[in-house]
Amino acid sequence: MENKKHVIKYELLKEDKRSMARLGRITTPHGTFETPVFMAVGTQATVKTLTKEELEAIGSNIILGNTYHLWCQPGSEIVRDAGGLHKFMNWDRSILTDSGGFQVFSLAKLRDIKEEGVTFKHHKNGAKLFLSPEISIKIQNDLGSDIMMCFDECPPYPSTYKYLQESVDRTLRWAKRCQDANRNPDTQGLFGIVQGGEYEDLRRHSAEELVKMDFDGYSIGGLSVGEPKEIQNRVLAFTTPLLPKDKPRYLMGVGSPGAILDAVERGIDMFDCVLPTRIARHGTAMTSYGRVLIKNKEYERDFTPLDPKCDCYCCKNYTKAYLRHLFKADEMLVYRLLSIHNINFLLRLTEGIRNAIKEDRFLEFKEQVYKEYGIEDDKDF
Amino acid sequence: MENKKHVIKYELLKEDKRSMARLGRITTPHGTFETPVFMAVGTQATVKTLTKEELEAIGSNIILGNTYHLWCQPGSEIVRDAGGLHKFMNWDRSILTDSGGFQVFSLAKLRDIKEEGVTFKHHKNGAKLFLSPEISIKIQNDLGSDIMMCFDECPPYPSTYKYLQESVDRTLRWAKRCQDANRNPDTQGLFGIVQGGEYEDLRRHSAEELVKMDFDGYSIGGLSVGEPKEIQNRVLAFTTPLLPKDKPRYLMGVGSPGAILDAVERGIDMFDCVLPTRIARHGTAMTSYGRVLIKNKEYERDFTPLDPKCDCYCCKNYTKAYLRHLFKADEMLVYRLLSIHNINFLLRLTEGIRNAIKEDRFLEFKEQVYKEYGIEDDKDF
Repeated sequence: MENKKHVIKYELLKEDKRSMARLGRITTPHGTFETPVFMAVGTQATVKTLTKEELEAIGSNIILGNTYHLWCQPGSEIVRDAGGLHKFMNWDRSILTDSGGFQVFSLAKLRDIKEEGVTFKHHKNGAKLFLSPEISIKIQNDLGSDIMMCFDECPPYPSTYKYLQESVDRTLRWAKRCQDANRNPDTQGLFGIVQGGEYEDLRRHSAEELVKMDFDGYSIGGLSVGEPKEIQNRVLAFTTPLLPKDKPRYLMGVGSPGAILDAVERGIDMFDCVLPTRIARHGTAMTSYGRVLIKNKEYERDFTPLDPKCDCYCCKNYTKAYLRHLFKADEMLVYRLLSIHNINFLLRLTEGIRNAIKEDRFLEFKEQVYKEYGIEDDKDF
Repeated sequence: MENKKHVIKYELLKEDKRSMARLGRITTPHGTFETPVFMAVGTQATVKTLTKEELEAIGSNIILGNTYHLWCQPGSEIVRDAGGLHKFMNWDRSILTDSGGFQVFSLAKLRDIKEEGVTFKHHKNGAKLFLSPEISIKIQNDLGSDIMMCFDECPPYPSTYKYLQESVDRTLRWAKRCQDANRNPDTQGLFGIVQGGEYEDLRRHSAEELVKMDFDGYSIGGLSVGEPKEIQNRVLAFTTPLLPKDKPRYLMGVGSPGAILDAVERGIDMFDCVLPTRIARHGTAMTSYGRVLIKNKEYERDFTPLDPKCDCYCCKNYTKAYLRHLFKADEMLVYRLLSIHNINFLLRLTEGIRNAIKEDRFLEFKEQVYKEYGIEDDKDF
């Protein structure tokens, strides 16, 4: 193992005594923040409907950008020539970019996976595209994110052991190629992605080989792709102990309150999900007393805030009756207000988690949120 | 003529020597602002995509709400029970509401005009509706706007002299009924609407009868409905002198730079138009050097602000390349940014007009904007 300089610094501040939950602090070239942390998703160089100031006001310290989408539109060279993604979108805190791998496997059509990379068709216009570890890193270097992700294969659930075995090994070879391709090793960190489906020995093999390559952090991939919740929790429980304690651990695509709490309990530090902005566009809010569907008739004359316990811009200034009216009238302002509220909800949830770990009451906090939010085991968010 | 208390105070500060342009100051129960003034349109209890803070930041002192739309959704009683439109939408500066008359004649189907009022069908769901002077004022009283408009008939262009003659007289009878129906005469002002098409004697008759009724202000209606620009200017030129100097004059539905300048020259004080927010949604910006269609390929790598002379949030923080990307990606943020920019443009234009009147150079200012913006006589905005 090389003793290399790491762009991303992780400090382990405290471990929970009764679970694998941990409090940490990450420093990137664009700032420092405590973990567990939730990252809002800014797919197309914008966290949908919101400005930088609105994200800063609710304490958003790191957001996610999508390599695949930015590659398609406007193209990574344009973002590079603008001075990088931070400058292009007017965001000076931290940015993590995914590798495009997930979109290749979830959105794109007719993919053909070879050792060199993946040939596939654009999810909308059908144009033929090719992504490889080198191209993904080239794009992410153009974007200039603080944390890049390795280009990996994200196999569907369920996949056969034999298929996953080959896929894990190819993804490991791709991880090495990603590391070698990074032309900004002094300014952009790189995370490895542990794959292996639900199989403990494959996850172990993947984790051990990635750890040997000494990444800035590790993601646990191939989860939240339709598997039952207990499988996700079981995989997390046996995978995080395989990862070094002095590096951040990231569970990609997870953002429901219950799944965040479950994953923190099993040692995860970082989360991202489109959930808060996507459900906002469907008129759904996450509140301290559970989900609210703002279109419901019961809110027509409800002149109280969405969540009386919430201090976000939406809850301080508007009533449920007004939000319902805007939603019924299809007014964009409601998508802004609910997006602010929902992202704030998850940022306050992770803040609550951090405080609970500090005060040795994480499991009690988890139980309390489960109860107050009304999380059922099989039906989260 | 009664000597009644007026809710809306207008002070004439200065008259231009070489035109009918005038500088004034209006005070409503929710604030004071100078005229000529542009009012952004908040049709459905929201200026599309924007918050109160964003409107305040660009100096928006009075906005417009639409009686017809708020009557349909959420219903005026809900707004009333919320504490009125100001409280419902979180806006504590001035609000003007129209009467619903324009929508009845522009949007609604199968209308049947009788002395009592107008029966028509809802513009979307086809439901049978009835609006009368009393109902319009009842709704506007529920909304609690600072300035209400009389319920009038807005005839199409062209209409026959005979038709307009009958219509003007009916609208005058309706104006009296509106005045009598106002149950908040101490807190809500009411404007009369001069009709009469392009006919000077009908306009004179309409204006004289309305002035006898002593309204808080006067609107010139039935313009901007498809007639040539020279007819609009001619009607304005012979109508504003018929109105009292100590009352505000409002030209409804006009918001293009050229038409605002032309109307100010002919003595108009107040304007409203959906133009700045509507064209924003089509990716069009009004700038100091004319119209910009942000989707154009030429802006793909243009890393300069939309308008280098503009100090709005959009121009201070984002580039044309970013705006173009957002528009191509159909991201809501671009509609926000262009709406802020376009409304700011018209607020700065009217501010420039006011300064020019103060400094006795209104006609020079008008000529300069016409030239720099590239306004052609027949093709404004």
